[in-house]
Amino acid sequence: MKTHRVTIKDIARELKVSISTVSRALTDHPDISPGTKQVVRDFVEKMKYRPNAIALSLRNQRTQIIGVIVPEIVHHFFSEVISGIDEAAVKAGYNVMFFQSNERYDREIMNIQSIMASRADGVLISFAKDTSNFNHIRQLLDDRIPVVLFDRATDEIETDKVIVDDFEGAFTAVEYLIKTGCKRIAHFAGPQHLQTHYQRKRGYISALEKNGLPLDDNLVLISDSYESALEVTRILMQKPDPPDAIFAVNDMTAVGTLNALKAMEFRIPEDVSVVGFTNGLVSKVTDPLITTISQHGFEIGKKATEILIRRIQEEGKSFKPITEVIKTELVIRDSTRKL
Amino acid sequence: MKTHRVTIKDIARELKVSISTVSRALTDHPDISPGTKQVVRDFVEKMKYRPNAIALSLRNQRTQIIGVIVPEIVHHFFSEVISGIDEAAVKAGYNVMFFQSNERYDREIMNIQSIMASRADGVLISFAKDTSNFNHIRQLLDDRIPVVLFDRATDEIETDKVIVDDFEGAFTAVEYLIKTGCKRIAHFAGPQHLQTHYQRKRGYISALEKNGLPLDDNLVLISDSYESALEVTRILMQKPDPPDAIFAVNDMTAVGTLNALKAMEFRIPEDVSVVGFTNGLVSKVTDPLITTISQHGFEIGKKATEILIRRIQEEGKSFKPITEVIKTELVIRDSTRKL
Repeated sequence: MKTHRVTIKDIARELKVSISTVSRALTDHPDISPGTKQVVRDFVEKMKYRPNAIALSLRNQRTQIIGVIVPEIVHHFFSEVISGIDEAAVKAGYNVMFFQSNERYDREIMNIQSIMASRADGVLISFAKDTSNFNHIRQLLDDRIPVVLFDRATDEIETDKVIVDDFEGAFTAVEYLIKTGCKRIAHFAGPQHLQTHYQRKRGYISALEKNGLPLDDNLVLISDSYESALEVTRILMQKPDPPDAIFAVNDMTAVGTLNALKAMEFRIPEDVSVVGFTNGLVSKVTDPLITTISQHGFEIGKKATEILIRRIQEEGKSFKPITEVIKTELVIRDSTRKL
Repeated sequence: MKTHRVTIKDIARELKVSISTVSRALTDHPDISPGTKQVVRDFVEKMKYRPNAIALSLRNQRTQIIGVIVPEIVHHFFSEVISGIDEAAVKAGYNVMFFQSNERYDREIMNIQSIMASRADGVLISFAKDTSNFNHIRQLLDDRIPVVLFDRATDEIETDKVIVDDFEGAFTAVEYLIKTGCKRIAHFAGPQHLQTHYQRKRGYISALEKNGLPLDDNLVLISDSYESALEVTRILMQKPDPPDAIFAVNDMTAVGTLNALKAMEFRIPEDVSVVGFTNGLVSKVTDPLITTISQHGFEIGKKATEILIRRIQEEGKSFKPITEVIKTELVIRDSTRKL
């Protein structure tokens, strides 16, 4: 920050266009023609332009940056959400900084500090597993920094939310298994203090009940990772009355289930059907391909970002929080019997 | 930023410990006892403490934030690098903000703007595919913001680098195929303007040459994605003289190759061996498991971060850039014949 810099204003003056045109050309806004974009970029290149983001943002007190906190960046579901956020943000001329909490409340607080220090215009967050106090979010809202919660939300805060219909997704998956003739359906469940996992188990139970199948507690096991599924499947299938279908709480668990079943020489889906949840990359490359529930992670990210940007731009207007529920969808592949 | 805030200094005074102890307790530093951490956290909770990161950083003109730019956050290799960066940074008390360039030079410039606006203490970057001008990095260095390049680096800038030995990795993979008896080895290559892809092809050619096998141009095809490999494998295997092994430029391409071969009822590895490159998640869940080259993405991220933090802390000391080469490693699984 020590040398003189060419600003967007200088460029606009030099090229005889408006400041807004230069700004939008640099952020690849669709309203600006390719020719104009090229002229601006060439000029920027020629001037060895270093955009002075602070000066720019002081003009309107905004940084055009969105801060995002996810439990894990490297995660089947959040990866898709990140793609959706990035696309929607860039389209609207915002840049995005991503942070991960690594499922820890104290790191979530550090992330909020960094976001505030960076003066981001708004925040998107999906909570860590051990976050149960939400004062850090309340304080952002007190400072009038808009916040949208996604996926792992809470009812304790009055703000916008974009969530997934986990109950409905699980219900649909299990009812589909029943329709294809499965009668003993197991569920590999995740830790139940997480709403997403709890709702999926509820959906499983509800589908059994609605279709007159008994709930057998021996068929509900905690297993939410690839490694754990390898082990749990082996034990479960050696019992006297093994299941004819397994509904796994996520895709990685479904892949572990699949590989364990194959190692034990069960045929899929003839002997045992397998259904996952996520519709992540792995479900599309296994053998057989896995029937799963699409959570539309990309859509969630996109929608949450659009709501956030609207809030940023409406600053000062009266505020009535909305909750958007993204519908899940059954993706039928080869790990389940045909109807 | 409108209300009075309790600072780390206030907490230290109140608890009669040093500022450094409070800071390290909040960042979960291993040198601080669990008991002390608990006391600090409880106090923070009680005070509804909102850390004033700006005030804190002004104390020493540092933000304790590292900015990271990768081409894609959602990517088998970069995902592992991100985990390594995050672990090393948090261990040293730094927070990390991640940006993606989406393989675009103009977005890389936007990212650099945001990082400068956030006054990050240092930057880690792996270049977009279309970045060929490096003035944005030179300007960071002119402003004495340390920069470490990783994986996709360039010789045009004098700064620290952490790179992968792609040539050696490919050479090792192909020589292993030869040792297990393969004689007609195909290579599914990536776009050759990327150094990483170019070096992998060079390694493939060199291994053939060293072992007296002819280079057959019909066996070198451009294919670097799952979908493309499905198609290219089908065409290649229908030709009169098909290969007995395929060395794919990355794991996703290897998975596509595997699934196409299985669909055509080739036995793996009896009829055709398959080797990937990355050692990503997918190579560990396919059937059969894929023999691959580990790039040690986690190590790359960790090492790059450690070097960067050293540079940040040594500010002002004389500077001789180093280049660290992370060795690759052959991971033998079931998609190749035994020795």
